[in-house]
Amino acid sequence: MSATLSPLAPKSYPDLPPVEGVRFATAEAGIRYKGRTDVLLAVMDKGTQVAGVFTRSKCPSAPVDWCRSRIKSGKARALVVNSGNANAFTGRSGKEAVKLTAALAAKATGLAASEVFLASTGVIGEPLDASKFAGVMHSLAASAKPGGLFDAAKAIMTTDTYPKVATARAKLGGTEVTLNGIAKGAGMIAPDMGTMLSFLFTDAPIAAPVLQAMLTQAADTSMNAMTVDGDTSTSDTLMIFATGAARKRGAPLISTGADPRLRPFKAALNAVLEELAKQIARDGEGARKFIEVNVRGAVSPRSAKRIARAIAESPLVKTAIAGEDANWGRVVMAVGKAGEPADRDRLSVAFNGIRVAHRGERDPGYDEAEISETMRCEDITIDVELGIGKGRARMWTCDLTKAYVEINGDYRS
Amino acid sequence: MSATLSPLAPKSYPDLPPVEGVRFATAEAGIRYKGRTDVLLAVMDKGTQVAGVFTRSKCPSAPVDWCRSRIKSGKARALVVNSGNANAFTGRSGKEAVKLTAALAAKATGLAASEVFLASTGVIGEPLDASKFAGVMHSLAASAKPGGLFDAAKAIMTTDTYPKVATARAKLGGTEVTLNGIAKGAGMIAPDMGTMLSFLFTDAPIAAPVLQAMLTQAADTSMNAMTVDGDTSTSDTLMIFATGAARKRGAPLISTGADPRLRPFKAALNAVLEELAKQIARDGEGARKFIEVNVRGAVSPRSAKRIARAIAESPLVKTAIAGEDANWGRVVMAVGKAGEPADRDRLSVAFNGIRVAHRGERDPGYDEAEISETMRCEDITIDVELGIGKGRARMWTCDLTKAYVEINGDYRS
Repeated sequence: MSATLSPLAPKSYPDLPPVEGVRFATAEAGIRYKGRTDVLLAVMDKGTQVAGVFTRSKCPSAPVDWCRSRIKSGKARALVVNSGNANAFTGRSGKEAVKLTAALAAKATGLAASEVFLASTGVIGEPLDASKFAGVMHSLAASAKPGGLFDAAKAIMTTDTYPKVATARAKLGGTEVTLNGIAKGAGMIAPDMGTMLSFLFTDAPIAAPVLQAMLTQAADTSMNAMTVDGDTSTSDTLMIFATGAARKRGAPLISTGADPRLRPFKAALNAVLEELAKQIARDGEGARKFIEVNVRGAVSPRSAKRIARAIAESPLVKTAIAGEDANWGRVVMAVGKAGEPADRDRLSVAFNGIRVAHRGERDPGYDEAEISETMRCEDITIDVELGIGKGRARMWTCDLTKAYVEINGDYRS
Repeated sequence: MSATLSPLAPKSYPDLPPVEGVRFATAEAGIRYKGRTDVLLAVMDKGTQVAGVFTRSKCPSAPVDWCRSRIKSGKARALVVNSGNANAFTGRSGKEAVKLTAALAAKATGLAASEVFLASTGVIGEPLDASKFAGVMHSLAASAKPGGLFDAAKAIMTTDTYPKVATARAKLGGTEVTLNGIAKGAGMIAPDMGTMLSFLFTDAPIAAPVLQAMLTQAADTSMNAMTVDGDTSTSDTLMIFATGAARKRGAPLISTGADPRLRPFKAALNAVLEELAKQIARDGEGARKFIEVNVRGAVSPRSAKRIARAIAESPLVKTAIAGEDANWGRVVMAVGKAGEPADRDRLSVAFNGIRVAHRGERDPGYDEAEISETMRCEDITIDVELGIGKGRARMWTCDLTKAYVEINGDYRS
């Protein structure tokens, strides 16, 4: 694990206006870490609607199984997240730990266990001793307060070198609503100390099915458009909680996704998720460069996304960027290996807007000094124009450095 | 580029009995390297049958296009391979270079250009100056001789730290035939200095369609069961040339794949290809460990292979092995991300035969000292038992080390 702050960390954090109807508290349960918080409790007002997107892993963690089976109700009152142990691949004891955690939270808050949502991140395969939550749950419930989002973001960190928060405001039928989000990443996803978790909170009164549809769509161009190492956690969890508290201030209840009043909120949701996704990529293990891959001119958006992912996950592209090398040959290789329609003789590649390859050949016009200069930037944009259709996609990632190998290889020998 | 011999290099090489009906010569054409050979000419007797398997890249190199369009004839008389330049993503000039190379070889050997097969490996995107072959082609044709397979393997190397050769003998209807093979790898596949090329030569009289079917099948469990970084070259080429010279010694002409006399030859073909595939994985860029992944109990062989590939290509699994860490959690993560049917609660994982996880939980019986000891070996076998079917697959790879990042990152800054 690296404790050094990523050079790509945000220089400052935004003010975080509290979301009415949700209260946070954090504590040190001593699951694994010493001297830092490792458990987060969020308590939401009655009537809170919930939606979630979970890992596609065929071996999901116990908390993911728990959340999936409960989210259909669309109702939530509490969220418990711990770091240090992912409670994944823990068999029967994992299921027991999940039940115990929910029961402890229910008892402390006076809610039903079925309204408690759970997420865990940290080592996998080690039994989670949920009895450790017993000692802190009551004080968490007693001390939960509307502020504290930043502390919440800190409590869920693992190998993250900085907490990830984002906030946005939007008009909902003339009333201003707030949307806050936190996330943790690191390697996406190192099961040792990995997992992408993200939780959004809003006071907007939006029905669960509408939330679910919006969240699924927004995740596609944010959390699902970001990769560190192409590895998928057993625990990836993205949830949104809508307390509906803004209704008292005149916000309309939104019960259909087609409602045109939703538009500003959708934009805010996209913005918050994109911001969190970028922050995760910027904090990728060993990251020294943030990379945005834009693919245009593919036969379809789906095809464009596959190509963008092939580029963003290619170790050869990522090491080249680490070496500040505008190696468009490797980009072409990645386009080729994606298995999607592409025509070598129509392909163009640019780094930070400087075209280096055009229509299947090296661009004779590009200036080597100019390209060397731009590759020294912290942020690198790779633009690929396929020239065979209208499909486009964007993907975020980071470079692959020796530090990544160091962090994950540990070199015990 | 690393010039250091891989610690996993073979300690010795086998004797290489010449294959009757094929002659080799190598030369320094000065394409890119200084002081080493970089062009190989193989000339085969009249009647030589050929089959080939080529890259699945949608942006193949000019020589791959050339070979694909000519291999349908099933006939070959010559092969020209150069290292230093892949003639890939070179547009119109690439096609011209291919034509010129074939024309030069045809003129020097007195054969038709359509019977000349070509492969190139090295940098991509740089025009290949095929006129450089003019100076050496006649002396190559004049000096070609039956031995020289080892020199042939040397001439096609790029970032390889050692030449790759393999040989086998088999009975074909009572007559002994020989099968020799060479290969080059490195990163699979660094387009800068990468590409998997492999050429097999045999005196067995086997018709091209039969060769093709056998080669496609054998490639599936050898070259296609090996990965260094999951990156696919624009130039991957595997070809087999069968001179038929053993017919004079009484070997029967095989014209159908169902011929039972083929069996020993098929076994030899599998053995040679597996040996070459392993040698490539052992020479993966920065490799310090050779990894064999065995997946059993999947719902189908195809499903098993996808899971094996997900494990073999996972940066997190590969860095863990580099760090001599028996991190079965990352293996489970990779199983989960493969998207194939898997049941967490039936999953078992073993390293070098020592079971560390069983039925969805850490195996309480394993000895940490014993597992630490075995992880120090050069060769690591990862066995995954899914317990839900009979599908099995095997995959070879190497670990992911800082040296890989160094070789490919170049760190120009």
